[in-house]
Amino acid sequence: MSDATLDVIAIGNAIVDVMAPCADALIEKLDLVRGGMTLVDTARAQELYDAMGPAREISGGSAANTLAGLAALGARCAFIGQVADDQLGEVFAHDIRAGGIDFATAARAGDPPTARCLIFVTPDGQRTMNTFLGASQFLPAAALDETVIASAKVLYLEGYLWDPEEPRAAMRRAIEASRGAGRKVAFTLSDAFVISRHGDDFRALIAAGQIDILFANNTELAALTGEVDFDAGIAALAPKVPVLVVTRGAAGAVAVAGAERAEVAAEPVARVIDTTGAGDLFAAGFLAGHVRGESLTTCLTMGAVAAAEIISHYGARPEAELKALVAARVG
Amino acid sequence: MSDATLDVIAIGNAIVDVMAPCADALIEKLDLVRGGMTLVDTARAQELYDAMGPAREISGGSAANTLAGLAALGARCAFIGQVADDQLGEVFAHDIRAGGIDFATAARAGDPPTARCLIFVTPDGQRTMNTFLGASQFLPAAALDETVIASAKVLYLEGYLWDPEEPRAAMRRAIEASRGAGRKVAFTLSDAFVISRHGDDFRALIAAGQIDILFANNTELAALTGEVDFDAGIAALAPKVPVLVVTRGAAGAVAVAGAERAEVAAEPVARVIDTTGAGDLFAAGFLAGHVRGESLTTCLTMGAVAAAEIISHYGARPEAELKALVAARVG
Repeated sequence: MSDATLDVIAIGNAIVDVMAPCADALIEKLDLVRGGMTLVDTARAQELYDAMGPAREISGGSAANTLAGLAALGARCAFIGQVADDQLGEVFAHDIRAGGIDFATAARAGDPPTARCLIFVTPDGQRTMNTFLGASQFLPAAALDETVIASAKVLYLEGYLWDPEEPRAAMRRAIEASRGAGRKVAFTLSDAFVISRHGDDFRALIAAGQIDILFANNTELAALTGEVDFDAGIAALAPKVPVLVVTRGAAGAVAVAGAERAEVAAEPVARVIDTTGAGDLFAAGFLAGHVRGESLTTCLTMGAVAAAEIISHYGARPEAELKALVAARVG
Repeated sequence: MSDATLDVIAIGNAIVDVMAPCADALIEKLDLVRGGMTLVDTARAQELYDAMGPAREISGGSAANTLAGLAALGARCAFIGQVADDQLGEVFAHDIRAGGIDFATAARAGDPPTARCLIFVTPDGQRTMNTFLGASQFLPAAALDETVIASAKVLYLEGYLWDPEEPRAAMRRAIEASRGAGRKVAFTLSDAFVISRHGDDFRALIAAGQIDILFANNTELAALTGEVDFDAGIAALAPKVPVLVVTRGAAGAVAVAGAERAEVAAEPVARVIDTTGAGDLFAAGFLAGHVRGESLTTCLTMGAVAAAEIISHYGARPEAELKALVAARVG
C-alpha cells in the first residue's frame, strides 16, 4: 500500500439546493413528507418550484457537503459526481472546486439538466427535501479513475446514489478499487427510503466486510436492523462493521469500534435555522478526526461541532471557519 | 387620470447575484474597486468567478430588489427587465414572481446569458460588485406595455440601466407613458460611474421636470451637483425636483420636498453582514410610505428600517417580515 495522497474521495449526487423558508401550512398543502427526502420528476419539481417562495441557490449533495466540511477542516479531498453541461452544473463545479476539492468528472451534454433539490425550510428549522436527480443519476463507471480512488485513505459513498443503476455499478467498482489498495470504505445510509429499496444490498455489503465505517441516524439504524429500540439496533449492527457511527439529532451521537464505545451530546446551538446538511457535516467532522487518528470521542465531538455550525444558518455548506471552531473545542 | 391598479412599476436590470465572503487581501489581488460596481465582460467575469470562494446565488438587480421590498411591504408591483432563456433566467423570474410581483417580460433566446453580479463581501460587510450585464442590456422598448405603465402610481427607474442603449430608449418611452397618464417618475442615480457617463442626460431630465422623486447617496449627490459639501449638494439639487431623497450610509438620510426637509438617523443593526441592497431597500421603504401618503419623516424611517434589515444578512432581497418590522417602528 503506497502513501495516500488524498484523505477522502467521495462519490455522490451533484446537486444544487434551491432553498426557501416556508410556512407549516404549505407543507400540508403541497402534500410533502415533512423532514424527509422525496424524489420528484420534472413535472412535480416544476409544481413545487412554482409554489415555493423567493429562494436562494447553494450547492449541496450529501457526500459533496461532507467533503466541503472535510476540506474546511484541512483534509485533502476529491469528488466524483455527475453534473450536466449547464449553468447549475457550472455553479456546482465552481463551488466544490472553490472549496479546495478536486473535481474532475466531465459535465454530461444534453438533457437532463443538473440535479436540484427543492428544500422547504419550516419555522422550526426542519428541512423537507424534494430532489430532481437529473444528470446526477447517470454517473457512469467510466467516470472513475481507479488510481485516484486507490490513493485516498477513505472512499466515502452516499446511500442516496445507490438508487439509480449506473452510479450503483460505479460505486461497486469503486469499493473494489479502494479495498484492493488496502484503503477503507465509509458509507452513509442516507435515508430510510433508500434502505427500504436497497436494504438487502447494504446488509450484503456489510456481511461481506466491504464497509469499514458506517454512518446512520437513528431512523436508518432501525430500518436497517429491524430493531425499534436504539440500543438494540446498535447491539445488532456494531459487531458487523469495524466502526459504526449513529446520530440522533438533538440527542447527540454514538460510535462503536470493536469493544470501544463513545457517546457525545449535541453541541449547543443558539438558534436552529436550517437542519439541511446536519448529518453530512457530522460525517465530515467525524471523518476529519478519523483520518488524523483521533480517538472515537474526539471524532464524535468534531462531528457534533461541524453539525452545530451547519444548522445555525441556511445551506449545507459550512460558512464559518470550521477549523477554528473545531480547534477551539478539541484542540 | 384613471385609478391606479399598481403602486409601483419598475424597469431595471434582471440580475442574479453570485455572492461569497472574501478576505480583504483578495480585493487587492484581483484589483477590484472596493465598495463599487464595475461592469465586466465574459473573460473578466470568468476570471473573477474562478478566484471566488464557494458562493450562493440570490436574485438581485437594483430596481428588482426595491420592488421585492415594496411587495413585502404590501405594495402592488410590476417589473420589466430582460433575462435570457436559461437557468439563471428561470431563477430570476421565479424569485420575482414568488415575491408577488408581476413580471411579463419574455425571456430572450440565445446568447448572451442572463446577467449576473459577482459580489465579494469583505469581513466589514462591504460589498464589491462586478456585473456581467448579459441579456439585461438588450431590453427592447417593445417589451413595454404602456397601458400597464400608465396604470402605476409610480414608475421607478434605475440609473444603472441608463448605460446600455436599448434600455435607455425604453426608459425614455416609459417616462413619456407614465407622465402622459399623470403619474410620477422616480429615479435612482445608482452609482457615480453612471453619472460620470450620463450626468448630462440626468441633469436634462431633471431640468425638464421629468423626475418627480430622485434617489441618490452622498457620493452620487456630489457627482451630479459638483458640490463636495453635502448640504451644498442638497441645496443645489433640492429646488429642481419635487422630492429629493439622499442616503449617507451609517449617517442616515435626508429628504427635501419643496419647503419641507426631514432627516433620520440610520436604524441600529446588531451586526452588518452584507451591505448589498442597502440603497435599494431604502428606496423600497421610502416609496412604500410615499404611495400610501405618509409624511416625509415616516417615509425616511420606513426606508431606514428596510435598509437595516437587508444589511443584517447576505443578499439584497428581504428575509424577515419587513411589514412587521416597519409596523413595529412606524405603526
